[in-house]
Amino acid sequence: MSRYKLTLEYNGTNLIGWQENPGGVSVQSLVQDAIFKFSGQNVNVYSAGRTDAGVHALGMIAHFDLDAGTDGNIVHRAINFYLKKTNVIVLDCKQVSDDFHARFSCILRNYKYIILNRAAAPILEKDLVWWKPVELNIDAMKLAANKLIGNHDFTSFRASECQAKSPIKTMDKIEIKVVEEQFGKRIIIEFSARSFLHHQVRNIVGTLVEIGLGKPYDIDKILAAKDRSAAGPTAPASGLYFVSAGYATND
Amino acid sequence: MSRYKLTLEYNGTNLIGWQENPGGVSVQSLVQDAIFKFSGQNVNVYSAGRTDAGVHALGMIAHFDLDAGTDGNIVHRAINFYLKKTNVIVLDCKQVSDDFHARFSCILRNYKYIILNRAAAPILEKDLVWWKPVELNIDAMKLAANKLIGNHDFTSFRASECQAKSPIKTMDKIEIKVVEEQFGKRIIIEFSARSFLHHQVRNIVGTLVEIGLGKPYDIDKILAAKDRSAAGPTAPASGLYFVSAGYATND
Repeated sequence: MSRYKLTLEYNGTNLIGWQENPGGVSVQSLVQDAIFKFSGQNVNVYSAGRTDAGVHALGMIAHFDLDAGTDGNIVHRAINFYLKKTNVIVLDCKQVSDDFHARFSCILRNYKYIILNRAAAPILEKDLVWWKPVELNIDAMKLAANKLIGNHDFTSFRASECQAKSPIKTMDKIEIKVVEEQFGKRIIIEFSARSFLHHQVRNIVGTLVEIGLGKPYDIDKILAAKDRSAAGPTAPASGLYFVSAGYATND
Repeated sequence: MSRYKLTLEYNGTNLIGWQENPGGVSVQSLVQDAIFKFSGQNVNVYSAGRTDAGVHALGMIAHFDLDAGTDGNIVHRAINFYLKKTNVIVLDCKQVSDDFHARFSCILRNYKYIILNRAAAPILEKDLVWWKPVELNIDAMKLAANKLIGNHDFTSFRASECQAKSPIKTMDKIEIKVVEEQFGKRIIIEFSARSFLHHQVRNIVGTLVEIGLGKPYDIDKILAAKDRSAAGPTAPASGLYFVSAGYATND
């Protein structure tokens, strides 16, 4: 048995998300189908993050096992050959030790969220950002974001269908970067944590944007409420990117 | 009569280019149709650059005239209303003096060309970059680019169908910027000049990439040859963006 670690880029726009489901085309099913087509083996592909429909990835990490010890470069090219014409591609593929697990060995997950804050709707970045036409108060958003860093009970930012055992998570980083453009600005919010609750990033972004619009949300009160209805709405999937994942091993 | 200056963003992928032509959907025809729908007036929209099929714009400048003196903000919203569901949008619209001409008053045109230089094909930037999987020698490309700056006879970089009176142009800037990514790099080449010959940027990029691949092209010899066949192939439209235009007036 040989284990392979994949780094994947995908555009989630017309996909039902990472997880395979009879209801539609998922990243997982596309990759598993491609592996089957060249190897004849029905494998399970495990990922560091199970992104929702419409969420993108710049460097999703995944792994799977094959019977034979085929070279990683050959596996790389073979999967990409069968992924042609899909919105998924393998950026990197290498053989790793059998104890590497894309999901359970992962100790750091990095996401980013892009808001296009300008009057005109996005054209070149259609489905790739969240468009907010009204100017946002960045300073207020930064102050609120800083209060979410650290160890907290994130129940107020957790989707009702979240399956995590505990709502207590440690947020290592929320950094808001602003890029001035000719007509408006681009707001990039970077998140890092060992793990996230379902919809946690999108619920935080939705709340930060309400704060940026001047709505009277108070992060301390939202956290203390431990109630999803205390926080703002869920930001759309289109602006969210799984960027990269960290592992303690050398794999 | 009122004259309006437009700043436009568009994705050129499924368009036949700027110029209207019975053969397909152009940026010009989309904007003219939108203006007709709200004003009932058949106008000619003039632009700073007549981009080819597949070429994009981040800030194309154009102008047109209307009979009545409608406020620029109202014109802006009305055009965008009728541009909905197209790949063109107005970023800015303002009334300007009657002697402003998007094409003839333009004294500076800025383009950029994006090359995605990595093994895997682009997914999130499909149709928005030129994909080159083989690593390019950036230093060689920079040396070659520097030789093209200044006043030259650019016949070797001019499309056969070019209608410019003279092949002699002054290139003010060719700057190559490299952004390192997780798997490969992004090469951004910025061009500035008062005016360009047809396909000049794409023919220069095609030649610079051949040089980056180690092909024995010599810019001095190519310029001296005054022969299109002396230079490299035309780079694809997908990587080219009209960025902005400069005018001596305050408009």
